[in-house]
Amino acid sequence: MSAPEPIAGGVCAVPGFTASAAAAGIKHAGSDRLDCALFHTTPAANIAGVFTTNRVRAASVQWTHGVCVRGTARAVFFNSGNANAATGAQGIEDVQAIAEQVSLGLDIPITEVAVGQTGVIGVPVPMDRLQRGLAACLEGLGPDDEAAARAMMTTDTVPKRAACRVQLSHGPVTVGGVAKGSGMIQPNMATMLCLVATDATAELPVLQAMVRAAADDSFHCIAVDNDLSTNDTLLLLANGAAAQAPVLSDTEDYARLLAGVRHVCVDLAQQIVRDGEGATKFVEIEVEGAASDEDARRAARAIALSQLCKTAFFGEDPNWGRFISAAGYSGAVFEPRDLSLWLGGLQLMEAGLPLDYAEADAQAAMRDTDLHLRLALGDGPGRATFWTSDLSYDYVRINAEYRT
Amino acid sequence: MSAPEPIAGGVCAVPGFTASAAAAGIKHAGSDRLDCALFHTTPAANIAGVFTTNRVRAASVQWTHGVCVRGTARAVFFNSGNANAATGAQGIEDVQAIAEQVSLGLDIPITEVAVGQTGVIGVPVPMDRLQRGLAACLEGLGPDDEAAARAMMTTDTVPKRAACRVQLSHGPVTVGGVAKGSGMIQPNMATMLCLVATDATAELPVLQAMVRAAADDSFHCIAVDNDLSTNDTLLLLANGAAAQAPVLSDTEDYARLLAGVRHVCVDLAQQIVRDGEGATKFVEIEVEGAASDEDARRAARAIALSQLCKTAFFGEDPNWGRFISAAGYSGAVFEPRDLSLWLGGLQLMEAGLPLDYAEADAQAAMRDTDLHLRLALGDGPGRATFWTSDLSYDYVRINAEYRT
Repeated sequence: MSAPEPIAGGVCAVPGFTASAAAAGIKHAGSDRLDCALFHTTPAANIAGVFTTNRVRAASVQWTHGVCVRGTARAVFFNSGNANAATGAQGIEDVQAIAEQVSLGLDIPITEVAVGQTGVIGVPVPMDRLQRGLAACLEGLGPDDEAAARAMMTTDTVPKRAACRVQLSHGPVTVGGVAKGSGMIQPNMATMLCLVATDATAELPVLQAMVRAAADDSFHCIAVDNDLSTNDTLLLLANGAAAQAPVLSDTEDYARLLAGVRHVCVDLAQQIVRDGEGATKFVEIEVEGAASDEDARRAARAIALSQLCKTAFFGEDPNWGRFISAAGYSGAVFEPRDLSLWLGGLQLMEAGLPLDYAEADAQAAMRDTDLHLRLALGDGPGRATFWTSDLSYDYVRINAEYRT
Repeated sequence: MSAPEPIAGGVCAVPGFTASAAAAGIKHAGSDRLDCALFHTTPAANIAGVFTTNRVRAASVQWTHGVCVRGTARAVFFNSGNANAATGAQGIEDVQAIAEQVSLGLDIPITEVAVGQTGVIGVPVPMDRLQRGLAACLEGLGPDDEAAARAMMTTDTVPKRAACRVQLSHGPVTVGGVAKGSGMIQPNMATMLCLVATDATAELPVLQAMVRAAADDSFHCIAVDNDLSTNDTLLLLANGAAAQAPVLSDTEDYARLLAGVRHVCVDLAQQIVRDGEGATKFVEIEVEGAASDEDARRAARAIALSQLCKTAFFGEDPNWGRFISAAGYSGAVFEPRDLSLWLGGLQLMEAGLPLDYAEADAQAAMRDTDLHLRLALGDGPGRATFWTSDLSYDYVRINAEYRT
């Protein structure tokens, strides 16, 4: 199977998709920071999503879940600066008003407008300002989505886009995505907001299976901190613009398209970790030799979330006791005497005991910006890879000062 | 039932217990920092314990678990500066050598010597230095345990002791304890190292039930960070020096003695949170109206562990959206429209919606050193109380620089 071929751009790399952005001053009136993003597709797309499992779900999550149940979308609107969560009946009315404005502006059914929102919780959306921004978006649709990716950002410092080309049996298709996310990232659901598009044709059950499989290998494998958002939304849209036969389950084409969707999701997920709040390190955690993939995921997840491991990464301290301690409380089943551990190319531990390596070599390995940790739990077939950032002074500063 | 009466001191407030401490230079040779603590009881005590559930268990945890299975102890030795975890067969031999030295020095069976260790993982114990310190401890036993409590400290800034008197039906008994703990504190097992003693008489099954019940209401309800140590050890010793009839299960005396043990454990647990690494706040989280106590615990635990809640406490930001978001992903079952929230005396939320309070009042409430957060999930009978610290720059500094 040929690998996905990376290409430039994001959602608008996919034929049929246009985008626009505007500065509505949602968080701070009068600000010229972009905070509204609109995506439009012709023809209409099939849509599937993965959403936060938080019981406190934002109004837009409830709305967009309904769109995914019906299964067709022609537009996706995102705003930053306000999460519209814990806003009660007013919040639901506000999302409906947003969808209605998009529906009227683009002359499409209101039921085909997905909405994602991110920002502060518990504050009513300033609808007058937002609606002026949305009006500007409706006027400005075009072939570039760089500004739209920028408008989704909250504490992100860079916009996040990824795209690739995949060869299916009847010709090439494109997969492209945009995402925002920097904090409140834990490996439980997806990221904060992410839209992935393709011009392949896929029916709903196929699309639903594909978005879940791609999330499991990407957004479910990253950690910045240990919080799960009220607004997490990952959407996969297939508009069929490539005019090919539908991709069916259990086929070579399914595997190829999934590889493309996974490529875009992993790329975006890694961009999120690299742009994690206060991050100075990008750490890949590989666990192998576990009794099962799920056990390997448990151990990798515990290391990725551990505050002590993350401060050790920040401090560039090869304090590997913290790594195996995190594996120890993760719930993964293993015998300590079977553990082996590598940091980059340097093996630190074998058969549960530290090797006689030079401390200076281990310290040098920790100084890289990109760290690679490999932990073998035994000789089982289970494996998993997670990506995490370090826990720095700036993470605390960013989150202590978030609203002030 | 009369409440436990707080008194001064720690373990040595209990008749029959003596203690001593020494500086062995375990972490840094030549350091005059106290790092060895010895406790001795005459008569012999029944002993029960709660230990870390980490699969990577320190050698001393394995040893002392064996002591608790046999059920009798006359001495407890603690050292800081080295955890003796991930040290293989050598680690086990070293613990045996420590127990043997105590056994010879005090002329007691080796099987009645409990050992607890804390400090860096994966480094062999410098036994020559430790054994010189232990020799000094054996010479120095006396009625004061302040130095012993100090010798247990790692990143702790203050020694932790608590004691109380309890009236049983045949007269008063004393309960006293010492503990160390500052980081790697999560509400999963007990604290790092804790010894609680009483001169009451209790058979093993009674003592085992009592130590678990007390841990559930104290050390299982505190959080500093999200890591679970390889060395957590909570020991409860009853030496019967008060010469009273055994305390039996399901009696008024059981309830009274448990209240005393719980009083000491809660006091020590709260001291640990107040001395949490980098802590500037002490936060009590009360969850009520849950479907069950377990649901209330889930919600309280999620808030206590959330990095976003803890940075908000540090930043004195009344960003309550983070508190209810944490409750939302905790696994507790509730409807967002039933939520009410109080910060100190100020109600912030009712029926799932923010009230029209003055932001300045909420900010003022966050400025207290002691914060009290009360969250009602509905009108169920379930309730729980947790205690946590904030996440500050100093937490990052302390843990990024731990070994350097």
